[in-house]
Amino acid sequence: MASRNISNDVHETPFSVFLWGGKEKFDGRKQILKALSSNPVFSKTAVTIPSLARKDAWKRAVAQARELIVLKHREKWTGSQFRDAVRMLDYFLPVQPQFRIFLSNLERQMSDEQKAIWVPKAERFEILGSYAQTELGHGSNVRGLETTATFDRETDEFVINSPTVSSTKYWIGATGIWATHSIVVARLIIDGKEYGNHLFLTQLRDLNTQKLMPGVEIYELGPKVFQGMVGVDNGAMQFHNVRIPRSQMLARNAQVLRDGTYVPPKNTKHSYGSMVTVRAIMAEITGYDLLKAVAVAYHYTNFRTQFWTKGQKEENTVFHYASVKYRLLPLLAKGTALVLVGQNIKRAYDDYTEVVIKTGNTSQLEDLHLQTVGAKVYSTDITANGVETCRIACGGHGYSALSGFGRMYAHTVNAVTYEGDNYVIAQQVPRAILKHYKAKTEHTVPSLSYLEFLRIPDSGSKLTVSCESDWFMPKNQKWVFERRLATLVKAHIEASEAGKDTSFTVHELTMAHCDFVYWRGFWEVIRKAVSTDFVSQLEALAHVFSLSLLQYAHKDVYAPYALTESQRKSLSSAYDRAIDTLSGYSKSIIDAYGFTEFEMDSALARADMDPYEALFAGAKDSEMNNMRDVWPDIVDARGIWGRLDKEEKAKL
Amino acid sequence: MASRNISNDVHETPFSVFLWGGKEKFDGRKQILKALSSNPVFSKTAVTIPSLARKDAWKRAVAQARELIVLKHREKWTGSQFRDAVRMLDYFLPVQPQFRIFLSNLERQMSDEQKAIWVPKAERFEILGSYAQTELGHGSNVRGLETTATFDRETDEFVINSPTVSSTKYWIGATGIWATHSIVVARLIIDGKEYGNHLFLTQLRDLNTQKLMPGVEIYELGPKVFQGMVGVDNGAMQFHNVRIPRSQMLARNAQVLRDGTYVPPKNTKHSYGSMVTVRAIMAEITGYDLLKAVAVAYHYTNFRTQFWTKGQKEENTVFHYASVKYRLLPLLAKGTALVLVGQNIKRAYDDYTEVVIKTGNTSQLEDLHLQTVGAKVYSTDITANGVETCRIACGGHGYSALSGFGRMYAHTVNAVTYEGDNYVIAQQVPRAILKHYKAKTEHTVPSLSYLEFLRIPDSGSKLTVSCESDWFMPKNQKWVFERRLATLVKAHIEASEAGKDTSFTVHELTMAHCDFVYWRGFWEVIRKAVSTDFVSQLEALAHVFSLSLLQYAHKDVYAPYALTESQRKSLSSAYDRAIDTLSGYSKSIIDAYGFTEFEMDSALARADMDPYEALFAGAKDSEMNNMRDVWPDIVDARGIWGRLDKEEKAKL
Repeated sequence: MASRNISNDVHETPFSVFLWGGKEKFDGRKQILKALSSNPVFSKTAVTIPSLARKDAWKRAVAQARELIVLKHREKWTGSQFRDAVRMLDYFLPVQPQFRIFLSNLERQMSDEQKAIWVPKAERFEILGSYAQTELGHGSNVRGLETTATFDRETDEFVINSPTVSSTKYWIGATGIWATHSIVVARLIIDGKEYGNHLFLTQLRDLNTQKLMPGVEIYELGPKVFQGMVGVDNGAMQFHNVRIPRSQMLARNAQVLRDGTYVPPKNTKHSYGSMVTVRAIMAEITGYDLLKAVAVAYHYTNFRTQFWTKGQKEENTVFHYASVKYRLLPLLAKGTALVLVGQNIKRAYDDYTEVVIKTGNTSQLEDLHLQTVGAKVYSTDITANGVETCRIACGGHGYSALSGFGRMYAHTVNAVTYEGDNYVIAQQVPRAILKHYKAKTEHTVPSLSYLEFLRIPDSGSKLTVSCESDWFMPKNQKWVFERRLATLVKAHIEASEAGKDTSFTVHELTMAHCDFVYWRGFWEVIRKAVSTDFVSQLEALAHVFSLSLLQYAHKDVYAPYALTESQRKSLSSAYDRAIDTLSGYSKSIIDAYGFTEFEMDSALARADMDPYEALFAGAKDSEMNNMRDVWPDIVDARGIWGRLDKEEKAKL
Repeated sequence: MASRNISNDVHETPFSVFLWGGKEKFDGRKQILKALSSNPVFSKTAVTIPSLARKDAWKRAVAQARELIVLKHREKWTGSQFRDAVRMLDYFLPVQPQFRIFLSNLERQMSDEQKAIWVPKAERFEILGSYAQTELGHGSNVRGLETTATFDRETDEFVINSPTVSSTKYWIGATGIWATHSIVVARLIIDGKEYGNHLFLTQLRDLNTQKLMPGVEIYELGPKVFQGMVGVDNGAMQFHNVRIPRSQMLARNAQVLRDGTYVPPKNTKHSYGSMVTVRAIMAEITGYDLLKAVAVAYHYTNFRTQFWTKGQKEENTVFHYASVKYRLLPLLAKGTALVLVGQNIKRAYDDYTEVVIKTGNTSQLEDLHLQTVGAKVYSTDITANGVETCRIACGGHGYSALSGFGRMYAHTVNAVTYEGDNYVIAQQVPRAILKHYKAKTEHTVPSLSYLEFLRIPDSGSKLTVSCESDWFMPKNQKWVFERRLATLVKAHIEASEAGKDTSFTVHELTMAHCDFVYWRGFWEVIRKAVSTDFVSQLEALAHVFSLSLLQYAHKDVYAPYALTESQRKSLSSAYDRAIDTLSGYSKSIIDAYGFTEFEMDSALARADMDPYEALFAGAKDSEMNNMRDVWPDIVDARGIWGRLDKEEKAKL
């Protein structure tokens, strides 16, 4: 148990501050954790959520949402801190969209006059908001949305309608019961002419009674898989001639004048912007979800022992088996790559936003769009698979909901689908690669260096690896990543030119491209951190990250460039060495992340009990103990067979 | 909607009968489905299980368990039919262990005198059984179990004890509330001397009151991840000097005489047998779980349309995108391989059992053990990943619990861990391979043909593929599988000889070995089916199965044997052709499996509604509609900010 080092306090070290993205973010997390973990409303041990009826879990979420409003007022949290607090509660809350998609859209898409009216109401929670885009029939393809908003010149209103079952707004967060207002995406129609999708702030419920407004039909849409997001009342919503004043079309860009004249937007990239924001945030934070699962698995597998080695008295610590270490340590490295490189992507986006505000220059948006799409696909795929790998590596006890892994998987795997399905949006990455290739502009994007191989097929030096240590040299690692990408991109170009449907293969290509992007990015981070005390830990992580990717990456390299048998072997033993080194640092890294008991929320990682004690205590707490009302039915069940025998005999 | 062909009836065609394992099994499924789907106690639409409190879900399971006892009596079901019926209800039931692990152990491990007493009681459900092996501290390593059974010569009893927290029996199915008797695995101690683990039939609860017996401490152990197995009350159990008569040690093999003399078992392989049985059953049935998920995804993606191709008026059917087809069709092929080859493994095991009964010859047990371990790892890994792939391929609506995918994943992924964790038991496959290699007995096992490459490194012809159609020839497919395995086994031998921990890499090796076993097995099945009407469908499935594996398998083949660029390309286009052909047959294959509405239990696959109608109907049915009791809290939440502002001002 020497390796357990779990508490409810956040310990500050330079390495911790670094891993959490700097002092400001580190302190922010600390403050929020303090406010939440000391407040009984947010207790994670008082109730076993997965045992509750969904209704009761949601009522709890409402109580927490109310308390968060109080905390935001008292602690003077910013919108971003409020979002962080919601995230830490794990189950999503009905108040989640308020400072995320609701206010961000009001702020970006409303005219100044509109903002003056609505933003304060939303910030003070006087209206409760949601964002209604997805329909039963269309998600990724927004052009297919069917909800209409028809301008009625007589009354100066828009009339919103759901013409078909498939136009039902579906999956709309916080809309099943909670929201009073929703930003509804609908096709604008004026005098029978269509102007495409626009946003309409629509009141859903009466502010005094919570009753639905006339013409608004809403149902809560039922449970999600894996008990995901039990704190959110997702809504299914139809509109039947719902009227809103003309002033509630969000009018920063396009407008409809009193006489019905349509004023088109000047900048067509605006709609793009909000997706880029959300994905930049995802790039920054998704990796922590993976790291949290790794931390739980790390604590547990360092506690559990199993099987004896001959001649040894004590059983072996499970973590030290290759079958565990080779699953968990690459994930520790990948999670770290995701957060460190993701932070830089988010920073680049923040810098861009500042430039736009100051100069109006949006030239970088396209590149950021590409980066954030890649990061979204890459980080969510790795995280979801990784969380489940951690659970399975914990064996049977990972299947107990008390381990917390079920909740973690439910809440990370949905990101593979939302904010753009990974297979659908992955198509944008090769599209951008090809655009640069055709325009011969790849030199403007460092992560496209490999396109050179396509122009001059035999360009670049040969791979000169002859021993294990050669594999630790960046130029050799780079050679493999570039060769592999050249191969994949070439195949993609040929398939595209032949008119083939590449929607399946683009996913693999996007992941491979991001391998290279994150590999470059990770080593760049380290170059800037050479003078720190924790550079050895970072290097150990980066080596495992690089070499774990190379185990697979090299297999895409064709003959005659393919690795020789001895190169494959030295790659494999270099990886063994890297794992071994990282294993030595693993405790200090897990400690530096320092996830608290509150954050991990797992019987496998408690401060005051070992995992077996905590699992046994969990059983003692089960609400299904002493279900005496069922006992007579069970006793009676044992008599069924005999009674039926008698009845049968009686009939004969 | 032309492609939807869902009903609640089972349609018989020669192809259907073949896919379901022959007339007897086909009819069995039909009869059970008829009995269950017409009985309101088993209705899958009356209640939305994932919305319920776990308590209520379990009470429902008790009601179903009681009704199943009635049905077994009335329909004169065999134990195996009873097991099939439990499986079809999807949530597991407390009565599940009765005809599975409880009775099978009574029958195998009890003496004839014991059986005469206990088997009829169990068959008539007069006692309700469970099997208590796993402890908090030990699962796979049975030698580490800590529960003790000490012989008390004075009273002619065993005294059962749980000496530590880690010795708590944990995960014990049907034991939290339901079972009256459990087969407890405990270390036998006589006069201070230990004789290893033995089985003890232990009464847990009073038959008239369901109250715990003296010294027996049991808790229900809390929820499982993903709402898995809500119908089972798994137990955490400790024994405090629990006394049972000597006659309740299961005494078919080892015995303890009245005077305390220990009579050791004659055959030491007996304990091995029950694992082989369970795994043989898993080999046979696991694939159907995958196929059910594929069927749901197939129905849905053939209904949904999304995005327009330029110049087309209708949106494209989602199934026809490569991103969907290349995920679902290989799974249709893999699921079919799992069931067809799995049936043969089960048949071989049944034949073996007959031989043992007739002749006592157990020489085939070791080979069957190897086959069933491989099949267990292979079928459960492919099925769990495949079910989740199906869900994700359905996009956002796959995340609704109404899709049924959440339930399917929860109940397939646990098999990756139970009956032997896949990483732990995977070690047995390379161990057996090496044993044959060292003993030069590989010729006795057809699936070890590749070991020849290791003896004569340049043996076997070179790969002579020069065009797409060459890839459809078995000899070329075989070449790749064998070369790959030779590479992996060679690496494994070298690592083992160097004393490395191979517990991680054995998983990959076992999967690769099974690729070859199932590839061989699938084509063997087809050779026997050449004269059927559906051989084209089978061949289309087998080609996609083979070529989908080869897409990855060839990457493990080293230079100088590695595929050339043009061979890789022709392999890829051969795969495209195979997918295309299978796509044409897919409807007829899905129809031949003919999963009923009851079996699929998904809003995405209803007989009388399309998926959008069913999802909307599901929302209308949500128990969270009209939660008027929460409305005042929500209305009040909008006033919180203003009140706090006022309070603050008042303080100033």
